[in-house]
Amino acid sequence: MAKVAVLGHGVVGSGVVEVMQKNKSVIEKKAGQTMEVKRILDLREFPGLPYSDKFTKDFQDILNDDEISVVAEVMGGTHPAFEFATACLEKGKSVVTSNKELVAAKGAELLATARKNNVNFFFEASVGGGIPIIQPLHLCLSANRIEEIAGILNGTTNFILTKMIHENMPFDQALKLAQELGYAEKDPTADIEGHDACRKICILASLCYGKHVYPESVHTEGITGLTLEDVAYAGDWGGVIKLIGRAKRLENGMVSAMVCPAFIPNDSQLANINDVFNGILVRGNATGDVVFYGKGAGKLPTASAVVSDIIAAAKAHGTSNSLTWADCHEDYVIDYKKCDIAFYLRFVSNDPNAKAKVQAKLGTVHFLNRDDQPVNEFAVTTETLNEGALEQALDELSKENIKLLGKIRILDY
Amino acid sequence: MAKVAVLGHGVVGSGVVEVMQKNKSVIEKKAGQTMEVKRILDLREFPGLPYSDKFTKDFQDILNDDEISVVAEVMGGTHPAFEFATACLEKGKSVVTSNKELVAAKGAELLATARKNNVNFFFEASVGGGIPIIQPLHLCLSANRIEEIAGILNGTTNFILTKMIHENMPFDQALKLAQELGYAEKDPTADIEGHDACRKICILASLCYGKHVYPESVHTEGITGLTLEDVAYAGDWGGVIKLIGRAKRLENGMVSAMVCPAFIPNDSQLANINDVFNGILVRGNATGDVVFYGKGAGKLPTASAVVSDIIAAAKAHGTSNSLTWADCHEDYVIDYKKCDIAFYLRFVSNDPNAKAKVQAKLGTVHFLNRDDQPVNEFAVTTETLNEGALEQALDELSKENIKLLGKIRILDY
Repeated sequence: MAKVAVLGHGVVGSGVVEVMQKNKSVIEKKAGQTMEVKRILDLREFPGLPYSDKFTKDFQDILNDDEISVVAEVMGGTHPAFEFATACLEKGKSVVTSNKELVAAKGAELLATARKNNVNFFFEASVGGGIPIIQPLHLCLSANRIEEIAGILNGTTNFILTKMIHENMPFDQALKLAQELGYAEKDPTADIEGHDACRKICILASLCYGKHVYPESVHTEGITGLTLEDVAYAGDWGGVIKLIGRAKRLENGMVSAMVCPAFIPNDSQLANINDVFNGILVRGNATGDVVFYGKGAGKLPTASAVVSDIIAAAKAHGTSNSLTWADCHEDYVIDYKKCDIAFYLRFVSNDPNAKAKVQAKLGTVHFLNRDDQPVNEFAVTTETLNEGALEQALDELSKENIKLLGKIRILDY
Repeated sequence: MAKVAVLGHGVVGSGVVEVMQKNKSVIEKKAGQTMEVKRILDLREFPGLPYSDKFTKDFQDILNDDEISVVAEVMGGTHPAFEFATACLEKGKSVVTSNKELVAAKGAELLATARKNNVNFFFEASVGGGIPIIQPLHLCLSANRIEEIAGILNGTTNFILTKMIHENMPFDQALKLAQELGYAEKDPTADIEGHDACRKICILASLCYGKHVYPESVHTEGITGLTLEDVAYAGDWGGVIKLIGRAKRLENGMVSAMVCPAFIPNDSQLANINDVFNGILVRGNATGDVVFYGKGAGKLPTASAVVSDIIAAAKAHGTSNSLTWADCHEDYVIDYKKCDIAFYLRFVSNDPNAKAKVQAKLGTVHFLNRDDQPVNEFAVTTETLNEGALEQALDELSKENIKLLGKIRILDY
């Protein structure tokens, strides 16, 4: 018999209770024991539910209940989620969470606390919602050196990009539609500026490479600067624009990690991941490319990932099966300006020699075309360039009145 | 320190040794202990290898070596693989395998033997090569009731179909090319007749629904009857033909399981899985559709899945973490003729009333077109029909000289 507490009765929390009830027989069979949600922490009132008696506003009721062996933290935010999770782990309770902000900020610390107390800290739901990715990376791809991991990690921005690409809908209108459909928050900053994807790639990079990657060290660009013109040039190039979080192992022991819009070729497995779906590509040195696809968010998908962790924690009671990663030293994540990558660049200039000047600065480029292209606009793709050197070259071009309208990295998955 | 034996030094077996050496540091970090291949069983001689001293021709050398705690069975076939695996489990050694034939025929029995002896029997590599699927299904989707699982489970046939679809290459020529490239065996029967996919869907169905599904109970059709005409009609319908293995939970506690070519709509995640790649779609009642994609075969992908199981077995030494399923009773898998499904049907007839007669027998149909369509040929898609009733109707039409040229099920993933 495992007794479970749920911290937070929002979208995910109520989903956890729902899945635990709806799939009770499947869950108990998998867990090999009876499973019951005993307490739910929320400051709000929830009268009239069949389980209204389980609510408490006092975290101590859960912390001090020795019957409760697994706690699902689904409140979101770093505080007090971090303090609550730490307290539970120190009391010998396993903690599972869907809270990517918490894991990205405090993962190394919480994993260490779990290990010290011989309990588990699991977070399958923190990346990719209902898509199994954390455990498969940890367990099934364990024989691989992971060369690279890249994914469409945010459903909101992927929905917006899908509308821009397939319906030629401008960014602002697509964002508004996403908000109307409930896919985007009233304040959409965390999604559209790439912060949400950043937290997720931090978690994946930490897991793949064994050292914590903090969000602050990851160069992050959102999709607010993208235009339908960029989308059209991407089409001419033979691909689409996706917001990609990626992390890559470098030969010198460092990693590169970044979130940015990117040109992706049409025949890539990531190119056809549309709407609010997520997809994550893992490149192993033995297994090659493996892709995981599914709903990256939503009440029941996310809740089902939380519940799968609850089951795993209940089964592992009394042992510490948590994966681990160490904290990282400074300079572990390489400065993005030191990386080499190919680019799409869009310029406007009335200088008749603008194209020649761009070629002189950037070397071989390939020109792209779009419908209704103004005579003073042109777009190119470059060969692989050092990003720091490119920025300097673009600065110099800007001084010659060759103005940059768009800059998007080109990825080849 | 875990010492490992490898039974069979063929493609996968030599890959296992290679991955164990190449990724030694990653593997030992994941396993939390040193890992070493101590013995390799093969009747052939392998002189001149850096590890030639590890070979033995006598299985007893491995069975009676108490230092060896994990045995990788990668010989293929049911005998003596079954006897060897059983003997190892009974001696307290965990067994991991890539042998789908063995798991599909003897899985329930081997899992029971493993459990009885408090060791593990793992088989991640038996389905989908390097794609993580067995453990994700078992662990990460454990909070879901799996409504359905369907996949492109055989790379050889998917390569042939890709050539037929994208290069208009006839079946025989595509098969020959697959043989030249080493994707198909000299005797390609197991692939092109669907037997290989059948074993894999048996394993997945057993895992999802908890009772062993035997290959003999699964209606299996291969791709030998497919023509470029069928491919063209599928295109007109808006999709492609894929060889799909599928299993579905029925409300009455039975399951339906089948391997057959199927029409798949272009916007399905399974439609764009091409060449030798595999893809597996899992439909959970909470998480919705999740798709796993990657190389379904090949030396290193398959070997890396075997090695991930070796790591898991080494970590779990002294405990039994194996998933389990029970043996099944008769009548657990429903007769395919009792199922309802929609069909594509292609006919030839010189009867001017043939189309009307087909409509009279089959109800609402939708006519498809192709280039160079002979005047006496027509193709339709039907609504959902009972398959047994359809077979009878087709029999009757045949007696009226309306001859069936092709029959393919329509799936909607």
